[in-house]
Amino acid sequence: MAEAIRVCIIGLGSMGMGTAKACIAAGLTAYGIDLRPSACAELETAGGKAAGDGRAFAGELDAVIVLVINAKQAEEALFGASGIAPLLAKGTPVMMSSTISPDAARHLAGRLDEYGLPMLDAPVSGGPVKAGEGRLTVMAAGPEATFDKLSPVLAAVAENVYRVGSGIGQGAMVKIVHQLLAGVHIAAGAEAMAFAARAGIPLDVMYDVVTHSAGNSWMFENRMKHVVDGDFTARSSVDIFVKDLGLVTETANKLAFPLPLASIAYTMFANASNAGWGNLDDSAVVKIFNGIQLPGEADDV
Amino acid sequence: MAEAIRVCIIGLGSMGMGTAKACIAAGLTAYGIDLRPSACAELETAGGKAAGDGRAFAGELDAVIVLVINAKQAEEALFGASGIAPLLAKGTPVMMSSTISPDAARHLAGRLDEYGLPMLDAPVSGGPVKAGEGRLTVMAAGPEATFDKLSPVLAAVAENVYRVGSGIGQGAMVKIVHQLLAGVHIAAGAEAMAFAARAGIPLDVMYDVVTHSAGNSWMFENRMKHVVDGDFTARSSVDIFVKDLGLVTETANKLAFPLPLASIAYTMFANASNAGWGNLDDSAVVKIFNGIQLPGEADDV
Repeated sequence: MAEAIRVCIIGLGSMGMGTAKACIAAGLTAYGIDLRPSACAELETAGGKAAGDGRAFAGELDAVIVLVINAKQAEEALFGASGIAPLLAKGTPVMMSSTISPDAARHLAGRLDEYGLPMLDAPVSGGPVKAGEGRLTVMAAGPEATFDKLSPVLAAVAENVYRVGSGIGQGAMVKIVHQLLAGVHIAAGAEAMAFAARAGIPLDVMYDVVTHSAGNSWMFENRMKHVVDGDFTARSSVDIFVKDLGLVTETANKLAFPLPLASIAYTMFANASNAGWGNLDDSAVVKIFNGIQLPGEADDV
Repeated sequence: MAEAIRVCIIGLGSMGMGTAKACIAAGLTAYGIDLRPSACAELETAGGKAAGDGRAFAGELDAVIVLVINAKQAEEALFGASGIAPLLAKGTPVMMSSTISPDAARHLAGRLDEYGLPMLDAPVSGGPVKAGEGRLTVMAAGPEATFDKLSPVLAAVAENVYRVGSGIGQGAMVKIVHQLLAGVHIAAGAEAMAFAARAGIPLDVMYDVVTHSAGNSWMFENRMKHVVDGDFTARSSVDIFVKDLGLVTETANKLAFPLPLASIAYTMFANASNAGWGNLDDSAVVKIFNGIQLPGEADDV
């Protein structure tokens, strides 16, 4: 039997940890890099190896998946003082799965290329639960050869792999358009539920009708359940959408393209974050609407 | 065998015609009222009876479904010069399924009550195809007795019947909140597809990724296919959402409640209508974005 593929996940947040565990479940050897000792301990318990940086094991790796929060962290993890890129064996493929701009994807691919490291521009969608099940959707762009090198890793982490093009940046762009929809749909769901609350419609009834009608969205069904339950424990936070919709509007500005709905949705999430709800579940954007009583709130609000 | 229930559908547009045919398929006797002779002829061919007004058969009816375009048409059809309400047998239930305001629903219920006619405030969702299959979603409010009287009709036309309350106006309100989502989702889908076109992402690829990801919505999947195909033949028109989102924002104004996304979506559809695209498919709202080339458009646009 061939030796197991050794893959390192950089960034053990909810998406990275799920992905690392899916790799273990698929029979790969999973390494993790995260500054938080608690995250490293969790991966070790799950059967992986983890550390605050990858200097001890970089030379052993067959592939890298980057799942940090933004382009700045990706740059630091790869090329910073304890960055892993200079230590990887030449030819090791790097799957760039953070949500970043097309420009950042091209920049990182260029820097990796200096070390002979091929990059796949490969953002993901699906959330932590699907990540843990190895059932992500990957929207990837890059040369055929890089897809081939990463095929055992893609098989371990993804249910659907879309080849959206061969040019680095196209994967990032598709993800940005996707996040436009995801963010607007959460904000629209919140607006609808707040409006229903103002009009005296029970939110559980509203939820039930919408999820069985043409007004439904994946995000409405998933996130507005949290509003109905009055439970804003973060699965994915308000601040993630401040970041992602910020990236959406910046990318549109560079293309001189107006995004009337996404701009408003960004305003709604930024407003929620500035009110102190940035670390709550993204569905907490509903709290920006005043003059209503939501489930779980005290009567005297 | 008991005689078939005789139900009259007022308004043989795409929803009304579908509903009338579903009634026939369910073994009911279907009557139709529509000012357009072509619509009446279509229902007669399908096995129903139809006329420009209901004076000839009003006394024979067991139930009425109103599926005209707005409250003004409903008022005219029921109480105008050749209106049917004064001619119906006392106690005949009227299922009010047009999308109208809660105030209009209460007003119409009050006028019907003067003739001893109980009304169910019963908007529908699902589109012409489901209407024709008898598989609509009904979001209804009214007294228990009115639900009971209409139960054979509801069984014929609906897959899901939600009893959203007992007070007239609550059904209309739930439908209005639903249309907020439906309208915003179409506009958001158009915005996302226009943005993808500007960024050089093939729209069929974008459609494929979104419909398999968390960014999906019922409306994106249904309507953006028309954009991918470059086919704006109206199934449901831009002007329907000018009307419905107008109703959404008016209702919100009465409740002094801000709807940031729905207001923008209204602006987008009104903008499309004023450009001359009101009778095109509602997905043609994508045409408000300039500086892009959509599928089916000539290269020199």
